[in-house]
Amino acid sequence: MDFLELSDRIIDSAGSHKQISAAATNRRQAPTDFSIIYSKDLLPASGGEKVTKEFLHELLNILLGYICKSSRRSGKVLDFHHPHQLKEGLEGFSLQLTDKPETLEQILVDCRDTLKYGVNTGHPRFFNQLSSGLDLIGLAGEWLTSTANSNMFTYEVSPVFILMEEVLLKKMQGIVGWSDDEGDGIFCPGGTISNLYSILVARYYFYPEVKTRGMRALPQLAIFTSEHSHYSVKKSAAVLGMGSENVLMVKCDERWVILSFQGLVPFYVNATAGTTVYGAFDPFNDIADICHGHNLWMHVDAAWGGGLLMSDRHRMKLQGIERAWSVTWNPHKMMGVPLQCSVILIKKRGLLQDCNELGAEYLFQRDKPYDVSYDTGDKSIQCGRHVDVFKFWLMWKAKGSEGFGSQVNKCLENAEYLYDQLQRRTGFELVFKNKPEHSNVCFWYIPPTMRGLPPGPDRDTRLHQVAPRIKHRMMEQGSVLIGYQPLGDKVNFFRCVFSNPATQQEDVDFLLDEITRLGNDL
Amino acid sequence: MDFLELSDRIIDSAGSHKQISAAATNRRQAPTDFSIIYSKDLLPASGGEKVTKEFLHELLNILLGYICKSSRRSGKVLDFHHPHQLKEGLEGFSLQLTDKPETLEQILVDCRDTLKYGVNTGHPRFFNQLSSGLDLIGLAGEWLTSTANSNMFTYEVSPVFILMEEVLLKKMQGIVGWSDDEGDGIFCPGGTISNLYSILVARYYFYPEVKTRGMRALPQLAIFTSEHSHYSVKKSAAVLGMGSENVLMVKCDERWVILSFQGLVPFYVNATAGTTVYGAFDPFNDIADICHGHNLWMHVDAAWGGGLLMSDRHRMKLQGIERAWSVTWNPHKMMGVPLQCSVILIKKRGLLQDCNELGAEYLFQRDKPYDVSYDTGDKSIQCGRHVDVFKFWLMWKAKGSEGFGSQVNKCLENAEYLYDQLQRRTGFELVFKNKPEHSNVCFWYIPPTMRGLPPGPDRDTRLHQVAPRIKHRMMEQGSVLIGYQPLGDKVNFFRCVFSNPATQQEDVDFLLDEITRLGNDL
Repeated sequence: MDFLELSDRIIDSAGSHKQISAAATNRRQAPTDFSIIYSKDLLPASGGEKVTKEFLHELLNILLGYICKSSRRSGKVLDFHHPHQLKEGLEGFSLQLTDKPETLEQILVDCRDTLKYGVNTGHPRFFNQLSSGLDLIGLAGEWLTSTANSNMFTYEVSPVFILMEEVLLKKMQGIVGWSDDEGDGIFCPGGTISNLYSILVARYYFYPEVKTRGMRALPQLAIFTSEHSHYSVKKSAAVLGMGSENVLMVKCDERWVILSFQGLVPFYVNATAGTTVYGAFDPFNDIADICHGHNLWMHVDAAWGGGLLMSDRHRMKLQGIERAWSVTWNPHKMMGVPLQCSVILIKKRGLLQDCNELGAEYLFQRDKPYDVSYDTGDKSIQCGRHVDVFKFWLMWKAKGSEGFGSQVNKCLENAEYLYDQLQRRTGFELVFKNKPEHSNVCFWYIPPTMRGLPPGPDRDTRLHQVAPRIKHRMMEQGSVLIGYQPLGDKVNFFRCVFSNPATQQEDVDFLLDEITRLGNDL
Repeated sequence: MDFLELSDRIIDSAGSHKQISAAATNRRQAPTDFSIIYSKDLLPASGGEKVTKEFLHELLNILLGYICKSSRRSGKVLDFHHPHQLKEGLEGFSLQLTDKPETLEQILVDCRDTLKYGVNTGHPRFFNQLSSGLDLIGLAGEWLTSTANSNMFTYEVSPVFILMEEVLLKKMQGIVGWSDDEGDGIFCPGGTISNLYSILVARYYFYPEVKTRGMRALPQLAIFTSEHSHYSVKKSAAVLGMGSENVLMVKCDERWVILSFQGLVPFYVNATAGTTVYGAFDPFNDIADICHGHNLWMHVDAAWGGGLLMSDRHRMKLQGIERAWSVTWNPHKMMGVPLQCSVILIKKRGLLQDCNELGAEYLFQRDKPYDVSYDTGDKSIQCGRHVDVFKFWLMWKAKGSEGFGSQVNKCLENAEYLYDQLQRRTGFELVFKNKPEHSNVCFWYIPPTMRGLPPGPDRDTRLHQVAPRIKHRMMEQGSVLIGYQPLGDKVNFFRCVFSNPATQQEDVDFLLDEITRLGNDL
């Protein structure tokens, strides 16, 4: 590799290559013409280093352009097109795949177009999902992860990542409040799978024969969960062969009186730290009293609420979580780790391994030259497992625990600001009068023509259509994005959530102005 | 953003910043000193664009250095350390996490160290796993995916990626041999989860009541699978509440005579296209005849073998796969897509949705302004789902179907070359005499002192220790990496697999030389 080949280049902010002063050009080559270069010319092709470097520099410029634009409020959150429009091909952006290769120039154009027609989840005015923002250290971690392109099954192929997983699991267990001699866990592909693990392991704890003999060897089990818990509990029950109808929803005002239901045997209780829509917290100590009294497995789904443990100001909302036997916690939500990063923590050590291990000899040989207890892959229900840990580890290094705490505080301050504004502004109505516990704030917008209507079915019918119609216009304008849904007897309302530390009070103001502007004539 | 701030920089190949000719420096700033900069100074911090760009350029140089080194044969595959060594901290590389933030300089050093102590899975002499190599277009795709940081649940947040998933699923279904009016599927976190889906959906197809009522409402079901199939079939049976003992292993020479076993009701047959260790293919047409005759669900686990469908020369090995009702296919294996990228294909449309949907109203509102059949997230057993499709789509664009075919052919040519060499060289013994069907080549190395021993338990006991001892030395040297395992009555043997198109015949020669060198004195 000629050192000068690369040092010749000036990468400018617009992403094009320029040659520098004429005096220096004599040994320099012309900029790469990607329109005559193909993927086969990149490494591992002989002599492919130069083209590879230039291609990835060019890509970096495209990604940097996107990242910088994302952080500017003047840019759009999305540029909406219907499925049929994108499928027909917009301005030459064709999704179709062919037999013949395209040039690298076309590949770079496709990269630009993919970003152009996507949704800018890092924009400070994207409030649509529990995961938002774009943490640059997390991003760097993910780029490195994909460059390393490894797999979590054994220490043999992922020594560093396996140890980082151990470090982070211990750290998180300590923060939950478990002692040094307890605690196990694993990183999973999302919170639903983490919750599935909790039921799987709880079932195995009480009935280890289920692993070999199946559910037919067991009594009819029942799962308890709070009314507003995530649907993943039901989904898991269906997948695990337990049946979704054996998930009993406990109303939040029933104070968790666990009864015996027609021959069903309760064994597992799911409590939620930060429900999806309302951001509510179950009373963990009360639930723990019941669970420990009845020998029931207590799980806390803190996928969304777990982040609050990082904040001295807010962690008391999770009091009692340390009494749970398992905890789901998604750093990709409130802690801003890029997707995906979710953890299941299990208090009792060894259960996860016993429940899932099959000891495949082509991976988990016992005659390896190192301590094979670090071959943690057989704890997993997956075989290959993506490395989700590094970006999280790198972010923790870069921010420290304190940095995560500040981020969480900031998001909750934004929620309080929105809550205050909603009370001050005309035309908005809170779904709950109380201050939000998490960063979820739920509200209706009442257009002027509806403000005099008495409560009742007629008003509800009209109000139900307001949020979807505003959202529709919002998507077309692309200026901001927020979610809505009905829940129980409540007609469609907006749910604003804050998890992007880039969001400022001015963005909250903008959101309310925009809703008013778009919904004023409804 | 001052255009000149960035165009001033020359990025040299060693990753350091240098200023250019004195005549041009007057308007230029000093290189960024990362030792006084923290993650909070990056975007979204006000004025953070410059630092962000420089930080990501610096990271790119680190990653490029690694990528270029990976492709050089002179570099090591790994630099082995025991867990306790890495945990104690090597040359300042500390895995521990603290309350306070580290500087960006430390973050960049940590990135270098993470790569240094990891395993170089892209090295042309890494033969340890079915996934290897580092495709640069795939890598570019993954970098873009993490920059977009989105989620597959709805068209609303991932319009482009959702459509790309549809395009790729259709493409793969066509290649499997299904007609245009059949075929469904989803991208999953790995082949085990894909196989789990196949059993889940098959169970639902025959017994839809399982979703709500669980396994206790069903007869005792049995799953058939071939003897050398992947352990994920048993793992899935355990997870799904069916019991691992109800997975009946059919010996490969039994020609798939499906019997009735003591009241068990067979409903599902797993056949394998490319077994994990031997790379063998089941006789799909024979199995399809039985399955269709007995109304059994036929699944083909082509996680490893699916890639051969891309090659005109090898696709006949999968004849009959088109008669399967579901197919697992991992592009992250034989097609070289970065981890992870796995697909479950289901022939009958709608089953996947019916089996898994719960219709959560906060995500899957029916009153959206676009065709909500594109909100495919409720097909999944996950809620949030990582975007695994883009890197694959981009690779397909860049190579065309033909490019994948050539890659596959090249890998199988390497396997044939190894097979030939093993027959020519002294001290090697093939596990099977026949030419490999896939790129797996299984063999023993017989050290000189053992070459005269008669077959029998004494020789087996000694031979069993040869592969682990050579592998141990190999890890310490770090020059090459290959897997080994026992299987059935066969003592530990090496399994070489080829999935990295960077591997050349010289690497195969090197592998055999190295095994001889390391095992000669055993």
